[in-house]
Amino acid sequence: MKKIGIIGGTGYTGGELARILCAHPDIEIAAMTSRQSAGKKVSDTQTNLKGYIDIKYTESLAGVDLDLIFVATPHGVAMKEAPSLLDSGIKVIDMSGDYRLHDASVYKKWYGHDHTDPKYLKDSVYGMPELFRKEIKKAKIVANPGCYATATILATAPLLMAKAVKNDFIVDAKSGTSGAGMVPSPRIHHPFCGESIIPYSVGNHRHQPEMESVLDIVSKAGPKILFSPHLLPIVRGILSACYMTAINDITNEDIAKIYEKQYKDEPFVHFVEEPSIRAVVCSNHCQVNAKIFDEKIVAFGTIDNLVKGASGQAVQCANLMLGSKETAGLNTPGMGV
Amino acid sequence: MKKIGIIGGTGYTGGELARILCAHPDIEIAAMTSRQSAGKKVSDTQTNLKGYIDIKYTESLAGVDLDLIFVATPHGVAMKEAPSLLDSGIKVIDMSGDYRLHDASVYKKWYGHDHTDPKYLKDSVYGMPELFRKEIKKAKIVANPGCYATATILATAPLLMAKAVKNDFIVDAKSGTSGAGMVPSPRIHHPFCGESIIPYSVGNHRHQPEMESVLDIVSKAGPKILFSPHLLPIVRGILSACYMTAINDITNEDIAKIYEKQYKDEPFVHFVEEPSIRAVVCSNHCQVNAKIFDEKIVAFGTIDNLVKGASGQAVQCANLMLGSKETAGLNTPGMGV
Amino acid sequence: MKKIGIIGGTGYTGGELARILCAHPDIEIAAMTSRQSAGKKVSDTQTNLKGYIDIKYTESLAGVDLDLIFVATPHGVAMKEAPSLLDSGIKVIDMSGDYRLHDASVYKKWYGHDHTDPKYLKDSVYGMPELFRKEIKKAKIVANPGCYATATILATAPLLMAKAVKNDFIVDAKSGTSGAGMVPSPRIHHPFCGESIIPYSVGNHRHQPEMESVLDIVSKAGPKILFSPHLLPIVRGILSACYMTAINDITNEDIAKIYEKQYKDEPFVHFVEEPSIRAVVCSNHCQVNAKIFDEKIVAFGTIDNLVKGASGQAVQCANLMLGSKETAGLNTPGMGV
Amino acid sequence: MKKIGIIGGTGYTGGELARILCAHPDIEIAAMTSRQSAGKKVSDTQTNLKGYIDIKYTESLAGVDLDLIFVATPHGVAMKEAPSLLDSGIKVIDMSGDYRLHDASVYKKWYGHDHTDPKYLKDSVYGMPELFRKEIKKAKIVANPGCYATATILATAPLLMAKAVKNDFIVDAKSGTSGAGMVPSPRIHHPFCGESIIPYSVGNHRHQPEMESVLDIVSKAGPKILFSPHLLPIVRGILSACYMTAINDITNEDIAKIYEKQYKDEPFVHFVEEPSIRAVVCSNHCQVNAKIFDEKIVAFGTIDNLVKGASGQAVQCANLMLGSKETAGLNTPGMGV
Repeated sequence: MKKIGIIGGTGYTGGELARILCAHPDIEIAAMTSRQSAGKKVSDTQTNLKGYIDIKYTESLAGVDLDLIFVATPHGVAMKEAPSLLDSGIKVIDMSGDYRLHDASVYKKWYGHDHTDPKYLKDSVYGMPELFRKEIKKAKIVANPGCYATATILATAPLLMAKAVKNDFIVDAKSGTSGAGMVPSPRIHHPFCGESIIPYSVGNHRHQPEMESVLDIVSKAGPKILFSPHLLPIVRGILSACYMTAINDITNEDIAKIYEKQYKDEPFVHFVEEPSIRAVVCSNHCQVNAKIFDEKIVAFGTIDNLVKGASGQAVQCANLMLGSKETAGLNTPGMGV
Repeated sequence: MKKIGIIGGTGYTGGELARILCAHPDIEIAAMTSRQSAGKKVSDTQTNLKGYIDIKYTESLAGVDLDLIFVATPHGVAMKEAPSLLDSGIKVIDMSGDYRLHDASVYKKWYGHDHTDPKYLKDSVYGMPELFRKEIKKAKIVANPGCYATATILATAPLLMAKAVKNDFIVDAKSGTSGAGMVPSPRIHHPFCGESIIPYSVGNHRHQPEMESVLDIVSKAGPKILFSPHLLPIVRGILSACYMTAINDITNEDIAKIYEKQYKDEPFVHFVEEPSIRAVVCSNHCQVNAKIFDEKIVAFGTIDNLVKGASGQAVQCANLMLGSKETAGLNTPGMGV
Repeated sequence: MKKIGIIGGTGYTGGELARILCAHPDIEIAAMTSRQSAGKKVSDTQTNLKGYIDIKYTESLAGVDLDLIFVATPHGVAMKEAPSLLDSGIKVIDMSGDYRLHDASVYKKWYGHDHTDPKYLKDSVYGMPELFRKEIKKAKIVANPGCYATATILATAPLLMAKAVKNDFIVDAKSGTSGAGMVPSPRIHHPFCGESIIPYSVGNHRHQPEMESVLDIVSKAGPKILFSPHLLPIVRGILSACYMTAINDITNEDIAKIYEKQYKDEPFVHFVEEPSIRAVVCSNHCQVNAKIFDEKIVAFGTIDNLVKGASGQAVQCANLMLGSKETAGLNTPGMGV
Repeated sequence: MKKIGIIGGTGYTGGELARILCAHPDIEIAAMTSRQSAGKKVSDTQTNLKGYIDIKYTESLAGVDLDLIFVATPHGVAMKEAPSLLDSGIKVIDMSGDYRLHDASVYKKWYGHDHTDPKYLKDSVYGMPELFRKEIKKAKIVANPGCYATATILATAPLLMAKAVKNDFIVDAKSGTSGAGMVPSPRIHHPFCGESIIPYSVGNHRHQPEMESVLDIVSKAGPKILFSPHLLPIVRGILSACYMTAINDITNEDIAKIYEKQYKDEPFVHFVEEPSIRAVVCSNHCQVNAKIFDEKIVAFGTIDNLVKGASGQAVQCANLMLGSKETAGLNTPGMGV
């Protein structure tokens, strides 16, 4: 039984890590921190975990013997906490954006301040097993992917890697509100967002350089994305619609083959006729599809933003890093209905 | 053209007053205050009003010649602002709970502090035209009813007034999230409330003594209500389900007659077979029904909480107080779909 | 008082026509047909109209003296009903797609069968006053625009007419479920669509040639659109996101000027910083915006699909055709919240 | 590995059985029938199961060697199918209402026709392990409880069994739309129900006699319920609010003790301060609470209607009937967010 700790146990991604890991066959949650809830039982704050977890939140993880730590805090915390943990030999999975952009100057441009841990930034591995499985297995620090980035990269990488599409494309993505985190704000206030769809941060969202950078690593295509995110009146789920341009004549059969080849052995990514949010909600699965319309190719990807888009993918990475079966604790289908 | 002012123009009820009054035939919005938005155009903050209103928010209403002022602020403000306005001869409609409970000791029990304006508290009239039309016409200060109270009182008053039911009953009411106001909070955070129904403040909500007090005024029945409010994942609309006990044998036909008699000349209350939120949303209408099941009587009432449950009813009162036709500015049907 | 009739009074667009017209100052609903509800009072089926309309549905409009007839039936009915009405001198507004595509061969390609009224098809005017006001005033038959087409054309026409963008673009549009009409179907079944967003008919929706054809008439740009519609889990409202490519250097200020010039005198179209569905729901308004991101231009348009996207726009046309003030019966702001 | 079959594999409860059982450690889905989809792969119809189940729907279960059959069909089918299965020694769990009311005359009153299998009706066991665990272990045929009945019985049985409340009470329950099944209908059409809450079948719903009958078996209290169900605009989840009357003085501490005593060893029922739908959705858990307000007691219960309210509870029963650990395949927490 490997022991893990969670820094930031009361946020949505911390809580979702606990939900997934409390039923994990090889991993034990040894400690969870929470500034606001230290001393309280985890299952009193998060009553869905009653019967599954019996520990209390603590102020810190100090003194707990751990194999791996998930840092589930807002952007900016991990790059302060991680270096000493890594120096002491503990593996780290950062749920925030701190370690996703390897180029510190790109980081500064999009996050507005210097990166304070350029050393480990260089070593960090992007935690998407479908593209970086080998690297994740050996990684000390994994940058868990952003939710929008996950749906979009999984939907578009096969076409870019196959040189089937131009490098310049549009991503119109739609996310459930849990992606915004647990702190109340005017945009996530139900009367504002509950019967609407709200575009925001068009061309200005931090997942845009993340997608570009990761897709460039795997395709060398120098992708240039205009990313247009929208807030949906649902709690969980992302649909990413990617509007690309074909380079050569290509048929829907060719496209299907490209995806099947890429994902045929993947446990969590499926090429299906009609990707559906409901089919993947509450699971680590991702559904993708792409079709051609004259010279345009439309690729869709769906995930649960809190699972494959956050805590599920992080557990998938932890499994690889700790020597468990990659699907351990994650091997359940989406809800469907 | 009568001139009115709105104190608290950026909240939901203030904004809804503006939405209704900007198309009113006899009333002009002369001024709206907002601490946070003073100096900004109203239609820049509330873009649905573009083309309908051209004024800017101000810090105060001082110096504006007004016939009536709506106080659309959180509880506690009106009883500080209203006395001097009333002393100077301006009529006031208070949208908050400050003037709804005529008994200052009941007020203190439910609001947790002394009422600072016992004088006008005694004079205030409960702004429900269906029950207090005559009094509203002559009132200086009107306490605009609470949203839950409106739906519940309109659904149950006829039976209580007809002595058809016992005084002791259950109200299980369900409200859209806009009833909670515009300030973000954990309960109205979309990921928390957006795919759920949340009971809260059972037996402990301030509309409970409001319903009891008003229903007692009209029925002398000494009603004793257990009020159980719920938050619905919709923006607008209330359904109040009232579970009462019949005193004598009574048929559904008898019940229908009681309601028809009470409401036959009312422009905004209709006894229908199946009261529906969608039928009244975006209108000042209320739909009611009641049926008997053995000795139990189930009465339903539906309203739009921001219109008949707040700003629409306030305009209906203002029409009466200013000598307009009661339905002026309100004479449109609910959305239906 | 002009007299109108509605063929197909129990569907959503027929019902919405009744909702709008029952409060219209110059137009009277003289008759509404319904095969399934003939003989029933309109306000018994559609209880939101209680107190506003007192007629019964009839089998047909035969024998009623009418100035104008709205045909609010599924595609294929109007082209059978309209010719004889038009021959007899009654004006017609068709809510369906029958008269929107002037080219009978394009019609056949997209609707799968021959057009049976090629004569009036040629004469029909596209009922979008912002682009065809003069023609509508004189029209005998108006083809009321499709909902998606309305939001998209209003959002993109100014840029195409100003030759500011290339003719080839992507439209990713999102619609509330009422756009699908009142007949239950698996896609509009709540458990399927209620907590999801569902892309459908990509590149294959009949509003695609409609947008292309109308935008070509006004811009001569030969637009070529890839239209990607999505079903949203809300009842009313459309957001159309249009991804275009700038031809020359152009700033956001230039873009704003293009829209302001086009729409400055329009009562129902506003260029605002953040177009919002909630700001226009339950009104005939449309909000638009466009911004440049490098060479890409993103244009947004929002409407209520049943009002500006259907019955409200039809009433706006009827006002023009019957000599009323263009805004009569429509002059109310959107809900905002 | 025990082998089970599902009759009616394309409906919601059949699909949910497949979702749960495809990850079950001791049970294998050997066959699923579907009239409309026979010959198709299950995972092509229900894409969330891709990678989990590889069989095709068949016309019937004939010739398959099975330990237990779930009958997941509309009311009326099971009582025709079950007798021969039972005669041949196969255990049966019926998901419909056919075997829930042991009294054939009560059945006839509420279902409108005679029961055609009075023999096994007498032997059938109500499949709620918290109340009938011992009987279920030995049962040949289990009547899986109704969704509303599950939430309501688990919320109220402890108080009735403790003789703490009167036998006459109100149940105001609210359900997600998936409870209505997969066949489209006007009430579940999104534009009708998606932004509303809809009371229906008050005093007339078949779960009313089911609750009364089962609660009487365990409490001998002769309960008399007025059941008032409502349709919520969410897909999954039930909140049952039960308004009861205390017999004697009782405190909230006494009440808590009654529930803790009843449920302390139950893996799936928890007494929590604020029962929440989100805490139990996508799990077999039920949360309950009760509090006293003067002489009234308000008891709440929440479940996922498709899991504890249908297929999860059925699997819990199957585990007992087949000798598996009761929690096998069900041991995951609710979503929480």
